[in-house]
Amino acid sequence: MAKYPIFVLSLLALVCALAFAYEPSPLQDFCVADPTSPALVNGRACLDSKLAQADHFFLSGLNKAGNTSNALGSVVTPVTVGQIPGLNTFGIALARLDYAPWGLIPPHSHPRATEILTVLKGSLYVGFVTSNPENRLISKVLKKGDVFVFPVGLVHFQQNVGNGKAISLSALSSQNPGVITVASAVFGSKPPIGDDILAKAFQVDQSAINRFRAQF
Amino acid sequence: MAKYPIFVLSLLALVCALAFAYEPSPLQDFCVADPTSPALVNGRACLDSKLAQADHFFLSGLNKAGNTSNALGSVVTPVTVGQIPGLNTFGIALARLDYAPWGLIPPHSHPRATEILTVLKGSLYVGFVTSNPENRLISKVLKKGDVFVFPVGLVHFQQNVGNGKAISLSALSSQNPGVITVASAVFGSKPPIGDDILAKAFQVDQSAINRFRAQF
Amino acid sequence: MAKYPIFVLSLLALVCALAFAYEPSPLQDFCVADPTSPALVNGRACLDSKLAQADHFFLSGLNKAGNTSNALGSVVTPVTVGQIPGLNTFGIALARLDYAPWGLIPPHSHPRATEILTVLKGSLYVGFVTSNPENRLISKVLKKGDVFVFPVGLVHFQQNVGNGKAISLSALSSQNPGVITVASAVFGSKPPIGDDILAKAFQVDQSAINRFRAQF
Amino acid sequence: MAKYPIFVLSLLALVCALAFAYEPSPLQDFCVADPTSPALVNGRACLDSKLAQADHFFLSGLNKAGNTSNALGSVVTPVTVGQIPGLNTFGIALARLDYAPWGLIPPHSHPRATEILTVLKGSLYVGFVTSNPENRLISKVLKKGDVFVFPVGLVHFQQNVGNGKAISLSALSSQNPGVITVASAVFGSKPPIGDDILAKAFQVDQSAINRFRAQF
Amino acid sequence: MAKYPIFVLSLLALVCALAFAYEPSPLQDFCVADPTSPALVNGRACLDSKLAQADHFFLSGLNKAGNTSNALGSVVTPVTVGQIPGLNTFGIALARLDYAPWGLIPPHSHPRATEILTVLKGSLYVGFVTSNPENRLISKVLKKGDVFVFPVGLVHFQQNVGNGKAISLSALSSQNPGVITVASAVFGSKPPIGDDILAKAFQVDQSAINRFRAQF
Amino acid sequence: MAKYPIFVLSLLALVCALAFAYEPSPLQDFCVADPTSPALVNGRACLDSKLAQADHFFLSGLNKAGNTSNALGSVVTPVTVGQIPGLNTFGIALARLDYAPWGLIPPHSHPRATEILTVLKGSLYVGFVTSNPENRLISKVLKKGDVFVFPVGLVHFQQNVGNGKAISLSALSSQNPGVITVASAVFGSKPPIGDDILAKAFQVDQSAINRFRAQF
Repeated sequence: MAKYPIFVLSLLALVCALAFAYEPSPLQDFCVADPTSPALVNGRACLDSKLAQADHFFLSGLNKAGNTSNALGSVVTPVTVGQIPGLNTFGIALARLDYAPWGLIPPHSHPRATEILTVLKGSLYVGFVTSNPENRLISKVLKKGDVFVFPVGLVHFQQNVGNGKAISLSALSSQNPGVITVASAVFGSKPPIGDDILAKAFQVDQSAINRFRAQF
Repeated sequence: MAKYPIFVLSLLALVCALAFAYEPSPLQDFCVADPTSPALVNGRACLDSKLAQADHFFLSGLNKAGNTSNALGSVVTPVTVGQIPGLNTFGIALARLDYAPWGLIPPHSHPRATEILTVLKGSLYVGFVTSNPENRLISKVLKKGDVFVFPVGLVHFQQNVGNGKAISLSALSSQNPGVITVASAVFGSKPPIGDDILAKAFQVDQSAINRFRAQF
Repeated sequence: MAKYPIFVLSLLALVCALAFAYEPSPLQDFCVADPTSPALVNGRACLDSKLAQADHFFLSGLNKAGNTSNALGSVVTPVTVGQIPGLNTFGIALARLDYAPWGLIPPHSHPRATEILTVLKGSLYVGFVTSNPENRLISKVLKKGDVFVFPVGLVHFQQNVGNGKAISLSALSSQNPGVITVASAVFGSKPPIGDDILAKAFQVDQSAINRFRAQF
Repeated sequence: MAKYPIFVLSLLALVCALAFAYEPSPLQDFCVADPTSPALVNGRACLDSKLAQADHFFLSGLNKAGNTSNALGSVVTPVTVGQIPGLNTFGIALARLDYAPWGLIPPHSHPRATEILTVLKGSLYVGFVTSNPENRLISKVLKKGDVFVFPVGLVHFQQNVGNGKAISLSALSSQNPGVITVASAVFGSKPPIGDDILAKAFQVDQSAINRFRAQF
Repeated sequence: MAKYPIFVLSLLALVCALAFAYEPSPLQDFCVADPTSPALVNGRACLDSKLAQADHFFLSGLNKAGNTSNALGSVVTPVTVGQIPGLNTFGIALARLDYAPWGLIPPHSHPRATEILTVLKGSLYVGFVTSNPENRLISKVLKKGDVFVFPVGLVHFQQNVGNGKAISLSALSSQNPGVITVASAVFGSKPPIGDDILAKAFQVDQSAINRFRAQF
Repeated sequence: MAKYPIFVLSLLALVCALAFAYEPSPLQDFCVADPTSPALVNGRACLDSKLAQADHFFLSGLNKAGNTSNALGSVVTPVTVGQIPGLNTFGIALARLDYAPWGLIPPHSHPRATEILTVLKGSLYVGFVTSNPENRLISKVLKKGDVFVFPVGLVHFQQNVGNGKAISLSALSSQNPGVITVASAVFGSKPPIGDDILAKAFQVDQSAINRFRAQF
């Protein structure tokens, strides 16, 4: 049985809307996303501005902890254009992250956003890896009130290294940052990437690949 | 005696670095701002990437309350490229806002950023005003865990409407959002805008203008 | 009775279309705005390019003076994507400004455009105020044939300081620059910003605020 | 003897600064171009903002007619970042155009800007040609107070078709629009494009090419 | 009879889709162009992402030579968003160019793209001309395996200078680069630019203009 | 002994220059990268344009096969701003890819570019994986003359599935696309990401992680 479902489901809303850092700039005061528009466009089509209300720019509940009862001990609560339609065209989003003790947000990248993370509670070990050929790991242990930056497109991770629960709040430079979790993209794609390809890519035998696939 | 100094000083770092929403995108993994570069450029010149360290992407202390003992009962703690050099080229920044009871972040705009605010503590009345000719006020009372969006360039404000202290954390879509407080830009510029101009602009007599100038 | 109606009405067309400086670049020779499109998008949807005609790129009448018989003694004639559909996707617009003697374009900002102004007739005192904390006023008296730049998002104003009428022509770096007049956004929003908030923001008592509201 | 010198010289300042439409957006209130910077960058390096003065945002003399005593009977007075250093990073420029009777701004394109032209005096026949394969000419006779748009990168021209002098003022969506006059780029390049290439390109014999080269 | 038809027809697809370099960035993983969308927008409207298939990102046949039996001895096979709908929002395209011996791609510009050309077979003489006032020709003879860059918006050309056929593959920085062939835009527009205008522009008599028009 | 050195070394030049898709647009005809500039900036500082020569826009040797005698049986020959200084500010680059029989370009992403690949020789199996939560694999077998698109930031791979050698030519929408090979970023970073983190991320035991690390 799949071990990632809770984590993956919690990312659903984050990805249903999508986006890239450094987005097209707004051409009006606001362009509230209209889910009933007959047209699909880059980003979202707009609601008639006369119909815009305060609630289009609003979301509640970010003070509520997500459920971290999953294999990774972590959960993401996204706040993107999928949750707040008023974010459309504005190039920014948020995400609340909850971590059980030793909970992990595993190595992943955001194809369309830089992330700036603030620790609200607990202590996190975080890091990102630069691109080829250096692949330098730049990492740090953060405590409450600390802030750290993950550059756009680079692989990064966060782990709760304190005794209790941890919480962080991230801001991302896209209305729809996108998430690519390395483990699920490489070993859990649908359909799968061939065993021979992965065995060659990681220079291991196919049985080792099969162990990595087992959770999906 | 000037009544704004603490508020104004707290904005100093936020503005010392500067920027516009929807910024030029990065042309390398990162371009850590180098304060010793011989060249001044749009944004900041870069440090040699080999010299970049984790601390260039890091800031501590955002858990500490600012001092709200000032006429407005509020204070801004900025987290822009001026505080975190690793934010350069990434189009994102943060600010912590502390409010004494009934404390106010007065009407202001960010010329280069949309803002997304999260209430960490307390209860806030917030609003923004659309551009001419509607000048529609879109406002809402927020409580802990609520999120609200202020579109780029529009005038907005936040007031603590709970009994105790309030705290919010804002993300902004620029490495250097800039702040234009209406009161200080119009009535407190150095040198001042002429009394006759302001009297005509606001359709009041010059004595009324003088009362507005008194605090500066 | 409201004292701003003529000024406000003259801004209607300028704002009906809206926009931000540094706009998404065109992906075809032109994308003439189509008011009958079923879709609302960032900017405007396009007319079938085969139907584009010279008149879509054309406007007449910018040689005609606007009516300055209003409290401010000034009027704006906008030339944005709302008037010339062929401007869509092109990041540029114009405005003609007429000033009665001592007529004033009161402090305002354009959330989506830098402005470059040319004096066609008369003499103007113009200025802009930098963002916090400096709030430096940079100003100059201009005469016929002089040109001046107002940076995007900053508060600026223009006053006729000659004996006769004055005319200027402005170009703006957006198809829909937007206008935020400080007086009407702060004291004339619909619904109004609370008296207590404005009294605290400007550090005056509420009766002073009421005098500023009186014209709306 | 060369027949274009006056026209070409008048374009010198327009081109000395350079640029493309839809430019990188500003990351600070302003970035006044600093001609003494040790670094050459995309656009211009910045002056220390504390040294910026009103004159950096200012130019005088646009009311003065240029000298149209040349073979084309026209002259361009550019107002780009080369003339106003405060335009740097702002994506906008101007040009005054003077036309003797029947004076012509010959077919040309701006590689980095859309142009919006206002007729200040006289009557102009203007047009632009769409890209391949249609190559449709979209043209119109303009009179005083008329406005017309020339899309970025497309070939366009303006001719004085009235009895007297004509004047127009153009705004362009770049701090440095660039000008490519077809005649001089194709027949007057230094060194020249080979006769055989041009003969084949235009499907004429080389003697015809030589007649076109004669003026350079 | 027209001498350009084959060349012009081969450019048809290249231009049917259109675009500008430095395009709005994607706000989702992909936005496959949907030719059946009810809305026309800047670029293309999107297909529902669930319907996207591998074939939307695919084109075959770029190994096949085009037919160079035309007056210029050259043909362009475009690979833009018009041929591959999956290129929408991605700011890149290709073109295969075939040249008969001495075949020529005549002077032209791309209003929305820089081009980087690779010689796959044969030997080419290529060049581009800088903008006014220098109009400097920067040129080089290329052989198999050589690469050359043509900056966005500048006039450039390629000629086969080897004994046999030549082939090159170009990449362009737009999903719809656009092509403006100088000869056809200036002498072959529909309707034509007036003889008097062209005679004055090129400083030749109208009979010379007529010879240039003859092929259209 | 490390098994990746040749592959990694061949990526060195590709990464030494860096960049992001949808880059700041050029503000002049060209800005040739100047390696001797005293300033480091986003992208590259410019050479004095008067010193630009044809060779700055030129590279030879792309017809030469790279050495595929390495564990992956593949090699990348990059053509970025690091190899052609004239590419600076132009948002485009190339790469030649050589594959031994069954040679593999392992799963990787480009943080700053979409890629469009053309098969010059042989037959390739290629695919990309969409972002969370779908992680859909979109793949296809390509033969000579086929073209395929890999969206910016998404994980993709190419494998030679023919009997002989294969060659492809890729264009990328950045002057410095960057490469993040999943295997080396996750299992081969310097210093390494902790075993416990990777074991939890992939839901395997630490001995399995050690087998994946062995090649580095």
